[in-house]
Amino acid sequence: MAIRFDYSNVMAENIGAEHGLSSANFEQLIPAGTEILKALRQKAENGSLGFYQLPNDTAGLADILNYAGVVKSRFENYVHIGIGGSALGPIALQTSLQDSYYNLSHKPKMFFPDNIDPDWLNDLLKQIDVSKTLFHVVSKSGSTAETAATMLYFMEFLKKKLGERFFQNLLFTTDPVKGLLNQIAREYPIQCFRIPSGVGGRFSVLSPVGLLSAAVAGIDIEGLLKGAREMAGICDHDDLMQNPAFLFAAIHTLYMQKGKNISVMMPYSNKLRDWADWYRQMWAESLGKKFDIDKNIIHVGQTPVKALGTTDQHSQVQLYVEGPNDKVISFLEVERFEQNGLLDNHFEYIDEFNYLKGKTLAELINAEKSATELALTNNQRPNLTFRFDRVDPYNVGAFTFLLQAATAFAGGLLKINAFDQPGVEEGKIATYALMGRKGYESKAEEIRNQLQKKTLFQI
Amino acid sequence: MAIRFDYSNVMAENIGAEHGLSSANFEQLIPAGTEILKALRQKAENGSLGFYQLPNDTAGLADILNYAGVVKSRFENYVHIGIGGSALGPIALQTSLQDSYYNLSHKPKMFFPDNIDPDWLNDLLKQIDVSKTLFHVVSKSGSTAETAATMLYFMEFLKKKLGERFFQNLLFTTDPVKGLLNQIAREYPIQCFRIPSGVGGRFSVLSPVGLLSAAVAGIDIEGLLKGAREMAGICDHDDLMQNPAFLFAAIHTLYMQKGKNISVMMPYSNKLRDWADWYRQMWAESLGKKFDIDKNIIHVGQTPVKALGTTDQHSQVQLYVEGPNDKVISFLEVERFEQNGLLDNHFEYIDEFNYLKGKTLAELINAEKSATELALTNNQRPNLTFRFDRVDPYNVGAFTFLLQAATAFAGGLLKINAFDQPGVEEGKIATYALMGRKGYESKAEEIRNQLQKKTLFQI
Repeated sequence: MAIRFDYSNVMAENIGAEHGLSSANFEQLIPAGTEILKALRQKAENGSLGFYQLPNDTAGLADILNYAGVVKSRFENYVHIGIGGSALGPIALQTSLQDSYYNLSHKPKMFFPDNIDPDWLNDLLKQIDVSKTLFHVVSKSGSTAETAATMLYFMEFLKKKLGERFFQNLLFTTDPVKGLLNQIAREYPIQCFRIPSGVGGRFSVLSPVGLLSAAVAGIDIEGLLKGAREMAGICDHDDLMQNPAFLFAAIHTLYMQKGKNISVMMPYSNKLRDWADWYRQMWAESLGKKFDIDKNIIHVGQTPVKALGTTDQHSQVQLYVEGPNDKVISFLEVERFEQNGLLDNHFEYIDEFNYLKGKTLAELINAEKSATELALTNNQRPNLTFRFDRVDPYNVGAFTFLLQAATAFAGGLLKINAFDQPGVEEGKIATYALMGRKGYESKAEEIRNQLQKKTLFQI
Repeated sequence: MAIRFDYSNVMAENIGAEHGLSSANFEQLIPAGTEILKALRQKAENGSLGFYQLPNDTAGLADILNYAGVVKSRFENYVHIGIGGSALGPIALQTSLQDSYYNLSHKPKMFFPDNIDPDWLNDLLKQIDVSKTLFHVVSKSGSTAETAATMLYFMEFLKKKLGERFFQNLLFTTDPVKGLLNQIAREYPIQCFRIPSGVGGRFSVLSPVGLLSAAVAGIDIEGLLKGAREMAGICDHDDLMQNPAFLFAAIHTLYMQKGKNISVMMPYSNKLRDWADWYRQMWAESLGKKFDIDKNIIHVGQTPVKALGTTDQHSQVQLYVEGPNDKVISFLEVERFEQNGLLDNHFEYIDEFNYLKGKTLAELINAEKSATELALTNNQRPNLTFRFDRVDPYNVGAFTFLLQAATAFAGGLLKINAFDQPGVEEGKIATYALMGRKGYESKAEEIRNQLQKKTLFQI
């Protein structure tokens, strides 16, 4: 494997006993970890832990690659309509494995409008000829309000241009059988890709949800799965002290118990930055729970934060070094960039630039990472590093699998269900009520009463 | 003013006594707040609180607008080289007040490479003809490692193309007198704009640091200053319960004392999203401090988090509603979008879409905001709202001033220096040592010794 996991700086040996962990801390979790691993294997075998199977589903790749070829030849634009788990992984695949300014020099241009802001969507409409645009709608149920609204909004323009041939510009990725998109696909011959049952939204990046757009962008999707498969083997390791998924979960749950309620992911790489947003969903939605599996009220969870090195050294590191010691910081480091970026001092009369002469941008970014790591460590701030030998599909696939497996382990250690999200229901119902959806009239009345009772404080 | 500040949902009346605030909580802070306001006025008058004066500096606008005209006529690309406070404000001005896909349809194309990732910078070089590119270098001292390295890296390509005429493609914004960029500008006739002394990096958005690129993009910079000026008047209000800067600071410092160590900024607007990153720096770097002004060790601070509605409803809201009650959430809401985005049900056989028919995207995004607000409030999670009547230069200018003034108040209430950042020094020195800079040899030796002593835990 070409990703190393270095957790030296969470250990008491390096950051002291008050904020550091001991080998005994880990040992105490081994029995629970072993049970969790056993349960995960069972679930994986009986198919109820869908994401464990995705890396093995190489049979589906040919269809995806074929369809991607069609998209590339037929369309000038690809618009991905999905939100949350249906967008974060696809976006991160695109930004980590393709040109940073892809849309300025590639076709089809690729857009991921994962919000319903009308100004944002209208700005997009100004850029595209909808008749030359493929709209890929990604939703298991088809009823997600934002996804449905975005699709309907674009449909208006598509129908005006193409009339009843609108369906030729639609692609769906959805449930194998159920849901509203399948209803539409029974009326029109719309190509559908399938999200295997048992694969939740935030665990779907290695299904067609993520692979289709990646293939359109020319990303090596076989490499992604290969990396994930090899990492799956590593995360199945019986010796848990050699199992990075267990270790990441153990470190974070131990720190949650110590009151460190913030988990920062800080890539020193622009290409990897959007994986921090993908991780934010994975960690927040999986572990932020009111109840444990025995229905005790626990209000557990850890707030994930995205930071970017070196950029956020000039924004967040002051706080991370001097503020409350309430975080675990996970660095992502890249050993080999595509080019190193050799520096010269073009203003030789300025002595202060000489230290950069003959050095490279790659050396500088990694020196700054080491410097930040040192400053944190010297101030007893726990931090760990995932060291990528390079950013490529193999490593990215491996990394996504590792964090998904770590999340499953963390759910087990916290004794919660890491695969549901009951806390978003209340907001969904209130949205339906506020939008006047049929069947939600009494909820609307309730909300009106509540708002009337509310005491206002505003200026 | 066209921004309303609604803090109803931090009050005990609406979220209960355990997590809510009382009028008495605010009253206790009034004497300190009054002293702080007096001190801020004094500093503003004697010029040591630079950002208070920026909105009044309309005399400098003509030069900025003139120069922006030159840039627009002479260059195909504008590249902004700066990091932290020299980049976050300029980026947020661009993304909030210009077309979301500006570079796909406007000239000059505008780039803000605020990191030294060599792959990212090389991807940019593939997009631009450096001879047709203006490089705007923004740094008070000129010695910021990332800014210097980025400038030197681009210089290599610029000199190859233009030889000694390279200077014609440079623009500096820097200290009035001191610093390395002024040394260069004494050798070549390079236009310089000035960051007034007393204006720190994160408080510089309304100086040429932010205004120059905004003017190049055609943003109404007079409107920005006008909004800021009127907000300055409001934040000078003697009746502190009518002063939004004091209220925002009081709410957050009261909650910090109650252990809520996370401050989320969650715009329900894609255009406003990058102001949350700007706020992250403002809040983290200003308030994250080890010492108070009397040199007591306090390790104070609150971790700012960027979230985006509706997108992060599908990522973070599960945690915000059900997880630990450890946050204060600040919503940004927009009353009027440029277009509302009327929806129709283009699949009438799908009854589940009918609630969207005849409604708009604007109604939906604001209903979702209200729904999230309700869910948080019902779960005793403190939240407040800045309600913009629209996103325009006037309101954006006002909002930036409000948060700067709020930060100054918060620093006063916490009894810290909100205007320094001593905690980043350690990392800077370690970087110099690791890069082999002259004069840092003993530090390098010390680091090598430390790394040797470190116990390794890695797989």
